[in-house]
Amino acid sequence: MEMSFLQKVRLQYKPLLPPILYTLSAVSLKPISQSKHLDPRIRSLFPHTQAQTAFEIVRSPSSKAAPLRIGVVFSGGQAAGGHNVIAALYDALLQIHPSSALIGFLDGPSGIIKNQSMPLTAEAIAPYRNQGGFDLIGSGRAKIETPQQFQASLQTVLAHDLDGLVIVGGDDSNTNGALLAEYFLAHGCKTCVVGVPKTIDGDLRSSDIEISFGFDSACKTYAETIGNIAKDAASGKKYYHFIRLMGRSASHIALECALQTQPNLTLIGEEGKSLSTLVDEIADLIRRRSEIGKEYGVILIPEGLIEFIPEIKFLIQELNQSLATGEPLSIGARASLSIFPENIQRQLGMERDSHGNVQVSWIETEQMLIELVRLKLDGWKGKFNTLRHFLGYEGRSCLPTNFDANYCSTLGTLAALCVRDGATGVIASVQNLAQSVSKWQLKAVPIVDLLHFEQRSGREKPVIEKALVDLKSSSYVHYKKKCHAWELEDHYLVPGPIQFFGPAELTDAVPVTLR
Amino acid sequence: MEMSFLQKVRLQYKPLLPPILYTLSAVSLKPISQSKHLDPRIRSLFPHTQAQTAFEIVRSPSSKAAPLRIGVVFSGGQAAGGHNVIAALYDALLQIHPSSALIGFLDGPSGIIKNQSMPLTAEAIAPYRNQGGFDLIGSGRAKIETPQQFQASLQTVLAHDLDGLVIVGGDDSNTNGALLAEYFLAHGCKTCVVGVPKTIDGDLRSSDIEISFGFDSACKTYAETIGNIAKDAASGKKYYHFIRLMGRSASHIALECALQTQPNLTLIGEEGKSLSTLVDEIADLIRRRSEIGKEYGVILIPEGLIEFIPEIKFLIQELNQSLATGEPLSIGARASLSIFPENIQRQLGMERDSHGNVQVSWIETEQMLIELVRLKLDGWKGKFNTLRHFLGYEGRSCLPTNFDANYCSTLGTLAALCVRDGATGVIASVQNLAQSVSKWQLKAVPIVDLLHFEQRSGREKPVIEKALVDLKSSSYVHYKKKCHAWELEDHYLVPGPIQFFGPAELTDAVPVTLR
Repeated sequence: MEMSFLQKVRLQYKPLLPPILYTLSAVSLKPISQSKHLDPRIRSLFPHTQAQTAFEIVRSPSSKAAPLRIGVVFSGGQAAGGHNVIAALYDALLQIHPSSALIGFLDGPSGIIKNQSMPLTAEAIAPYRNQGGFDLIGSGRAKIETPQQFQASLQTVLAHDLDGLVIVGGDDSNTNGALLAEYFLAHGCKTCVVGVPKTIDGDLRSSDIEISFGFDSACKTYAETIGNIAKDAASGKKYYHFIRLMGRSASHIALECALQTQPNLTLIGEEGKSLSTLVDEIADLIRRRSEIGKEYGVILIPEGLIEFIPEIKFLIQELNQSLATGEPLSIGARASLSIFPENIQRQLGMERDSHGNVQVSWIETEQMLIELVRLKLDGWKGKFNTLRHFLGYEGRSCLPTNFDANYCSTLGTLAALCVRDGATGVIASVQNLAQSVSKWQLKAVPIVDLLHFEQRSGREKPVIEKALVDLKSSSYVHYKKKCHAWELEDHYLVPGPIQFFGPAELTDAVPVTLR
Repeated sequence: MEMSFLQKVRLQYKPLLPPILYTLSAVSLKPISQSKHLDPRIRSLFPHTQAQTAFEIVRSPSSKAAPLRIGVVFSGGQAAGGHNVIAALYDALLQIHPSSALIGFLDGPSGIIKNQSMPLTAEAIAPYRNQGGFDLIGSGRAKIETPQQFQASLQTVLAHDLDGLVIVGGDDSNTNGALLAEYFLAHGCKTCVVGVPKTIDGDLRSSDIEISFGFDSACKTYAETIGNIAKDAASGKKYYHFIRLMGRSASHIALECALQTQPNLTLIGEEGKSLSTLVDEIADLIRRRSEIGKEYGVILIPEGLIEFIPEIKFLIQELNQSLATGEPLSIGARASLSIFPENIQRQLGMERDSHGNVQVSWIETEQMLIELVRLKLDGWKGKFNTLRHFLGYEGRSCLPTNFDANYCSTLGTLAALCVRDGATGVIASVQNLAQSVSKWQLKAVPIVDLLHFEQRSGREKPVIEKALVDLKSSSYVHYKKKCHAWELEDHYLVPGPIQFFGPAELTDAVPVTLR
């Protein structure tokens, strides 16, 4: 594999682990006794795993030193650090017993269903240490859903005689992991299923999961670009930059990037503002800045914003209904639709996914806002020149930051311990992440404890709730306190490119929203 | 000024200078005798400056130690390192005499015309050392063109009693510098005009100017993103990424980024391929990759490509003609237009600049190519899912690389020496840039030597010719040798973020096309 100089340098990086993970034979999983308050529907759906306890890692010599066979799969979108989960799993397995084996399922969960895999040997893994992307084994968005798919998955893990299956994924993939763990136990299969929390979106959070891996690398990559653009805006003084940020529904990435770069305005979906309020606020900002001679600026827009805007939610429901029933739009819906510029009406009305629903992610929210603001400013004499950006793919497969490299190595090692000690249906959890690695605290948490019921495709399903930005969290409150000053005065920060060498403040920085 | 941690760290960086610039009192400019072969029209347009010689810097004590007054201006688009030109000018002036003064003209050449300036003191400059952007004094695209503007500029430099005026700009700004130098001399004004070669585009090149500053930082910033996107493409295996790159007409940035990242295909405008050839080549690549199971990829497109495509050149001429005369399009032009998708026809036919001309930079070349390739692939059974990117603004104002920081400090010091020793109408030139800073060679080159005549807005004007990618250059030949292997096999490189610490191979790397 050809590599850049920095890629080769990063191969040499030795990820830090909490000291308790140095010698795996000296530690064990220990159940944490706690009273559980599960939804009775969860209890009945997960008869074999509902009582699973959480575990902590304690210094207690382990007698389990048999060779282990573990399969690993990437599920869903890329997040920086995934390869370190694999490398750490491998290193841990070898430490537990030199005859252990690691198998990678190819191109996501479909690799499990179809039993497509590759042996993950020392040679195969070596060029991927501390590298971005999921290209060693690929990823995919397939879900294991039908009875046939569950059965095929069981056949696969039996065929490989797996002690464990590690699923590196987001909320839906970990939900899937809980269902697989239940299914395997119900069928007398020994394979433990262990989840690893992955997603740049930052919406896989709970009291036990402070942050998913990949969020840090993605946000720092986006913040580099945002800071550079802000500096350019302040130099050229010609453009408003509307920057849409990947991150699905929740606005975690936008909030983190706002704290890292201090743009003039950040729209946070969870604030639940109406479209007219948002347009008014932007138009007002542009007028006020113009009055003090500033006809440029930077505005951050989370891609999920659109799902929080009441007018659009209503309109999309009406459009979907109208398309499904063939009935014309209601007068109210037609009136709502008429406020949008023509091309947005087209996007709302025409582009549909395979289920016939409006594809909200295809709506160019930043373009919609620009056009509505332009209408709002009609007759105003100032300048409103705009440029649009969408930041997403460049932050998913970048070289992982030291934080993500260390975090993923810790998660991978922890996952191997879970399999060794027979914990199933659990997700690897590392807490105290804002502290130095030596102070990180390790747990394994039952996935069923994270589940609740939600309407999905017309049916109540158990899912891990997507964590939204908590408007009472200290990071949001901190942001709200500071952001007003950023509107007229320019307090742009240029975080610059991720640094792998140099002062610890640079190389070991954790996300601001974790601090 | 609020700053990120890395911004603060970069303030501490001490840019390297060639040792000959350590003690300015020990060196002098020495004329290089050479025979000049100037166009007679240049001679007659520049009677006072046509005979200006080039200079080298030699170790020869200078008796010139009077206080100097220098004005500096940024002209045109941002490029990383501009603030270091200012800081180095300041440091050199103070070294020459502690009572020297540096004045910054605000928001580009209009600041000279309108005499809007600020004193550049140690305190004013301190927070901008090694920082990106042009925000200390701003920039602008005004040109000094009319007799009134030349006169106003003369008044300004007289009012400030300037010994020198340093113009930090690209080809047009340096042409303007030559005209100002001539005008000042013709009016008995002592102010020397010195140019500093700036532009990310890389098209200000000659035998004396190896590269303009800002190119290195911009290309490394774009290459970081391209490498990340390529890694993502190879992991998700779902999308063709069409990445359009800023850089005006010439394809220097695309070539440099191609060498740094090894994408599947790079369109080089200077190859002069027809639109149908380009579309065929892309469609062919997509079919061939699909045959080996790859339905993803990365394609680089320089924004200036469109100016090299014969069909589009013809069409734009016809459209402009038709609009100017009111006559309908010729049959040939209508046939040409009809091959474009509807929205591109709209962009070609409707969007015009203030002179009524088609705005080529507004045409989304990558979108046009995607749509034409899609038409070409009509009936083909494979997958062709696309994502579009435009990389530009994020690379102009980033933190300068060490190379640009050192280069700009050297250029600024050299410009101060030119003023001290009375060289006017010259551009600062640093050669041997691929070697370590201690081996860099310094010159001052008459701008008139770089001029030739070109048709501009219907008139023959003296301009610095934009340097295109030379298809015989060793870097292009090297690229051509390698790029075929990149089409089907994936040789993507991930250059990663610019590093300011760590191995010299990372921190001191120069552009590949310079090596």
